[in-house]
Amino acid sequence: MSQRGVSQSSFRVIDLIRKKRDGGALSDPEIGYLVDGCTNGGIPDYQMAAWLMAVVLRGMTRAETAALTHAMLYSGEVLDLGFLPAKKVDKHSTGGVGDKTSLVLAPLAAAGGLFVPMISGRGLGHTGGTLDKLESIPGFRVNLPVAEFHRVLKACGLSMIGQTEKIAPADRKLYALRDVTGTVESPYLICASIMSKKLAEGMDALVLDVKTGSGAFMKKEEDAVFLAELMVETGERMGKHMAALITDMNQPLGHMVGNALEVRECIEVLHGGGPEDLRELCLELGGWMFFLGGASATVAQGKQLSQELIASGKAFERFRQMVDLQSGDVRVIDDPSRLPDTGHRLEVPSPRAGYVTAIACEDVGTACVILGGGRERKEDSVDPAVGIEVHKKIGDKVLAGDALCTIHCHSDAQGARAKKLLEQSYQIGDASPAQLPSLIHRVIYKGEY
Amino acid sequence: MSQRGVSQSSFRVIDLIRKKRDGGALSDPEIGYLVDGCTNGGIPDYQMAAWLMAVVLRGMTRAETAALTHAMLYSGEVLDLGFLPAKKVDKHSTGGVGDKTSLVLAPLAAAGGLFVPMISGRGLGHTGGTLDKLESIPGFRVNLPVAEFHRVLKACGLSMIGQTEKIAPADRKLYALRDVTGTVESPYLICASIMSKKLAEGMDALVLDVKTGSGAFMKKEEDAVFLAELMVETGERMGKHMAALITDMNQPLGHMVGNALEVRECIEVLHGGGPEDLRELCLELGGWMFFLGGASATVAQGKQLSQELIASGKAFERFRQMVDLQSGDVRVIDDPSRLPDTGHRLEVPSPRAGYVTAIACEDVGTACVILGGGRERKEDSVDPAVGIEVHKKIGDKVLAGDALCTIHCHSDAQGARAKKLLEQSYQIGDASPAQLPSLIHRVIYKGEY
Repeated sequence: MSQRGVSQSSFRVIDLIRKKRDGGALSDPEIGYLVDGCTNGGIPDYQMAAWLMAVVLRGMTRAETAALTHAMLYSGEVLDLGFLPAKKVDKHSTGGVGDKTSLVLAPLAAAGGLFVPMISGRGLGHTGGTLDKLESIPGFRVNLPVAEFHRVLKACGLSMIGQTEKIAPADRKLYALRDVTGTVESPYLICASIMSKKLAEGMDALVLDVKTGSGAFMKKEEDAVFLAELMVETGERMGKHMAALITDMNQPLGHMVGNALEVRECIEVLHGGGPEDLRELCLELGGWMFFLGGASATVAQGKQLSQELIASGKAFERFRQMVDLQSGDVRVIDDPSRLPDTGHRLEVPSPRAGYVTAIACEDVGTACVILGGGRERKEDSVDPAVGIEVHKKIGDKVLAGDALCTIHCHSDAQGARAKKLLEQSYQIGDASPAQLPSLIHRVIYKGEY
Repeated sequence: MSQRGVSQSSFRVIDLIRKKRDGGALSDPEIGYLVDGCTNGGIPDYQMAAWLMAVVLRGMTRAETAALTHAMLYSGEVLDLGFLPAKKVDKHSTGGVGDKTSLVLAPLAAAGGLFVPMISGRGLGHTGGTLDKLESIPGFRVNLPVAEFHRVLKACGLSMIGQTEKIAPADRKLYALRDVTGTVESPYLICASIMSKKLAEGMDALVLDVKTGSGAFMKKEEDAVFLAELMVETGERMGKHMAALITDMNQPLGHMVGNALEVRECIEVLHGGGPEDLRELCLELGGWMFFLGGASATVAQGKQLSQELIASGKAFERFRQMVDLQSGDVRVIDDPSRLPDTGHRLEVPSPRAGYVTAIACEDVGTACVILGGGRERKEDSVDPAVGIEVHKKIGDKVLAGDALCTIHCHSDAQGARAKKLLEQSYQIGDASPAQLPSLIHRVIYKGEY
C-alpha cells in the first residue's frame, strides 16, 4: 500500500471516472485522491456518484479494494491498542435474524486471555444490531470516550461500544451517497465499508461470520463466498490474521429475536445452556478467534478452550464485569427476568399438522421491526422488550394449533401485523425436508487449521 | 410514445436507478419523471449522475432512447412551423474538420421549394460550427427572435440561427452533468441530445451526415453506424422521414478549414465550383433532402435537381437573400475577398518527395483551434480570419518542399505551433495508398431510394 499525503493535485476526477467506466484499475494514489476529495467536500457528490456506479458495474481488483479500504480507514482515527499485553481479536457478522453471537464471543475470547476491542453498529432493516441489544440492559453505556474504552478493555479484556464520529468519516459520507444512488449492492464497496470501520479497532486478527440464506443480505451462497474472500484478502493485505465462516441464515439463529430476548438467550449460552445451533456457532467462532489470536494451536483446540471457559463460568464472569464497567445494571445479568418485558404474549399457531419445511427468515426480522424492535429509518428508536420467541424451526414436527412462535408485544392489536407476517413466513409440509440446513456452509482460510 | 403530464409522483428515483443498473428497461413515464426532475431541480445531480453512468454501461433499448429524446425535446419549446406551405427538411452533421455543407445545403433545398429551419451549434473541440462560420460575414445575426426567424423562413425558404434558451433545457442540464461525470460517451445519450435539439425545429424530414474517421468523434465506422441507426429509428418513432449517410472524415472535407475560409469555399460551390469532394457530398446530401422532403421521386433525381439549382444560380441567390435578411453584409457574399483575412501566410512544406498516405485529421482541426479559429472552452471567442488551406490530400503526389498546406495566421510566430502540428499530421510514403477513402461509406435508410 503506497503512502498517501504525497502531492496528488495532478489527478483529474473526470479521468478517474472514465478509467473505471472503461474497466481500468485505479492506482492507490488515485483512489486515495477520490476518497480524500469526497470526505473533505472537494469532489462534488455527482462525480462520486458516477464513479460509484462505474465501480458497481465494472468491479474492482483486489488491490483497488484494499486501497479503497485503506483510504477510508485512514480518513479517520485508527485506535492504537499497542499498550495491551496480548493479541487483539474480533469477530464481525454481516448481519442476520437472531444473530447474537457477539455478546457471547467477546467475553469468551477475553476470558481466554485475548483482548476484544469491539466496535459495533445498530440494527438497520430486518437485522438487529449489537448496540441495541446491549442497551436493553438498563444503564448500559455504548458511547464511551476513548480513554474509558481503554480502561474497560484493560480491566476485563473486552469493551463493546458504538462507532464514534472520528472513525472512518469517508465511509459515512460514501454510505449516505450510496444509499440514494443505487450503489449499495457491490461486494467491493460493502467490503471497504465493513473493513474500514472494523480495522479502525486496531486489532491483530478478525473472524468474519458471513451469513447466507433467506434472512441474510447475501441470499445466494456464491455471493457470500465472494464477499468473504474479498474481505479476507483485504484484511490480509493490511497485515491482519483473517478467516471467514459462511454460516446459515435460512432461519433465525437460536430461538430469540428481539433485543432483551436475545440478551437473555446469550446469558443462557454463557451459563452453558441455550439452543444448540447458537451454542455450536459460538463455540466454532470462539475456536477461530483463539486460533487466529494465537491462543490455541488449532481451531479444534480453540473450540475445546471455549467449552471450558463457558463451563467454568469464566466467560460469563467477563460479561458481567464488562456490563458493570460500562454502567449496566448487573442485577439484570444475574437475574434476566429483570430485563425489559412487555408482559403480554401472542401466539402464532400452526394452521395444520406436518413439518416445518422453510421459514422466510427476512420476514421474521421484519416482523420484529414492525413490533418496534428494529429500525425502518436510522433515526427511529427501538423498543427493547418486544420480539419473537421462535419455537419451531426447519425440520420440526408440528400439530395443528401448536405455537410456531410467541410474540412479545404490548397488546394483541399491537402484535397483529407481525402475527400475520409470521403466519405467512412458515411453510408446513407433509414431510421433513430431506436435508436440514447445515450451520456452517464453508470456511475461507488459507492454510491448515 | 405515452403522453406525459399524468401523475408520476409514485416513482422513487432510487428504484429507477437500480432498474437501469440491473439492466432493465425504463418505461416512458419513468424516463419522463427523471428528465422532468432533472430539469426542474427536483432530482439531485448525484442521482442523475448515477443513472447516467448506469445508462453508459448498461445501454438503452430503442424505446427508451426514443422516450428520453421525447422527454428532453418536450422539456422546452418545439417550433410549430405548420404555417409554412411546404415540407420542412434539415440536415445534421455529427461534426468534422472543414465540414461546411450546411451553408450550401440550406439555400439549395430552399431553392428547390422546401423550407429549411436550421438551428445550429458552435464549434467545440477540434470541429467547427455553422454559427461561427456565418458570423465571419460582417453583421450577420444568428440570434433571431422566433417571429423574425419565421419571417426570414417565409421570405426565402431558409433561416440559420443558434439554439435559444427555450430549446431543450433538459439537454443543457444533462449535458453539463455528463461533461463532468464521464458520461458523454454513450450513443444513446448522444442520440437523445442531438435529436432533442434538432427535432425542436419542427421539421418533417432530416438527413443525418454521420462522420467517421480520424477527424470525426466516431473514429470507428461500426460506432458511427450504430449511432446513425439509433438516430434514424428515434426520428422515425417520432414520425419523421429519416436517413443517414456515413461519410468519410479521414481528411478535411474540401480544402478550407477556418471560418471565413470555409464561407469562401461554400460560395465557390454555390457558384458551381469548389473542390470535388465537397461539391459531391453537397449534391448527394441535397439529393436526400429533396427525396425525403418529397420534392423528388428518387435520390438520383434529387441530386440532379441539386445540380440544376446550383448551375442556375438559384441556390446562391437564396443564400445571398438569407444573409441579407439576417443583416449580413451581402457585399462580402458578392465579393468574398472582402471576408476577414489575416493578410499573412505561412506554408507547411513537404519534408520529402512521395505521396500523401494519411492525414491525422483531428490534428488539422486542432491546429485551427490553436490559431484561434475554434474553441478550447465554450466561452472562448473565435477569430474568423485564421485557418488552413489544405493543398495536398490523401493520394496526392508531392515533391520535397511542396506546400502541403498554407496557414492563415497573423505572423510566423503566431502560426508556429499550428505549423508544427500540421507537419506531424501528414504521412508521406513512397507510393500512393492502394485505396483512397471513399466519400460515402454507407447509407442507412429503410426502403428503396
